[in-house]
Amino acid sequence: MKFCSDCGSNITHIIPDGDNRPRFVCDSCNKIHYQNPRIIAGCLPLYLDSSEEKVLLCKRAIDPRKGLWTLPAGFLENGETVADGALRETREEANANAEIDSLYTVFSLPHISQAYMFFRARLLDLDFSAGHESLDVQLFAESEIPWDELAFPVITQTLEHYFEDRKVQQFGVYYRDIFFERRPG
Amino acid sequence: MKFCSDCGSNITHIIPDGDNRPRFVCDSCNKIHYQNPRIIAGCLPLYLDSSEEKVLLCKRAIDPRKGLWTLPAGFLENGETVADGALRETREEANANAEIDSLYTVFSLPHISQAYMFFRARLLDLDFSAGHESLDVQLFAESEIPWDELAFPVITQTLEHYFEDRKVQQFGVYYRDIFFERRPG
Repeated sequence: MKFCSDCGSNITHIIPDGDNRPRFVCDSCNKIHYQNPRIIAGCLPLYLDSSEEKVLLCKRAIDPRKGLWTLPAGFLENGETVADGALRETREEANANAEIDSLYTVFSLPHISQAYMFFRARLLDLDFSAGHESLDVQLFAESEIPWDELAFPVITQTLEHYFEDRKVQQFGVYYRDIFFERRPG
Repeated sequence: MKFCSDCGSNITHIIPDGDNRPRFVCDSCNKIHYQNPRIIAGCLPLYLDSSEEKVLLCKRAIDPRKGLWTLPAGFLENGETVADGALRETREEANANAEIDSLYTVFSLPHISQAYMFFRARLLDLDFSAGHESLDVQLFAESEIPWDELAFPVITQTLEHYFEDRKVQQFGVYYRDIFFERRPG
């Protein structure tokens, strides 16, 4: 950040009076431009098929992790609820109609200043297909999950929690911190 | 937003190619300046006193809702976990030492593009006092909660959930959407 988005003057990275950490402050109008973590909202879309609940996964058409499998999720927009954002991403990435069941996993990723929130969701029909950001969309039984081809640790952990909880049919809400973990590629 | 923070050129509010909603886009370098909801992290600090768990509340020294009571909470900073942000706010607003127990309430407030996350927390000692943003800090038994002088609906709802859950000693995690609700003052 080099210029003030309000007045166009130069920005300096300094600790403002009464604050305790450096901020981007305008040299001219003194506006402080805060930067804050972003929320990624997503669904764990489930569909009862042949007596087993299957999970909808999307194969990523975009970087990072292009070609790997993910749950539908994306940046929450201003003016929408976290639950609505999760459903919107499910529509956009999988052309899928779902209903929220309940909040399920919350992950804090401080190294990239993101917080993920996944909801358990019921897929309402089998009328789904790859959206613009997906190469493929499929339902997976537990035995079919491509564990070695999942895109992000938050996806792996959400699926692990789900299959554990399913054994006892008790679904908690999980908050987890995930610290830096970067894999090649 | 009028000027590009990267190059200082003029900004236009338009729908970029491949997007579906208006963004702030630089006329010159084409950088898209996204705006996203912010996270407010806070604690429900509890202390076992005379066989009852009491709740730590802070009387706000700043607007909005100056003079009303709140739980310690504030904007999450880049680079910190949601739980660490909640503990930092508890230190800053109440000079209090606490430990996280578990995630407790999550509120989505789309009209102001905010998501609150409160954690149940254990107050480690009685060495607390008003921080810069507080006029007073006190422990309250259930019968002492100033219900008519609470600062925000998220505070009221978090306390209501807590006292209900405490009766049965089972603490869930609550996700709630809160739509526009503005009180005079």
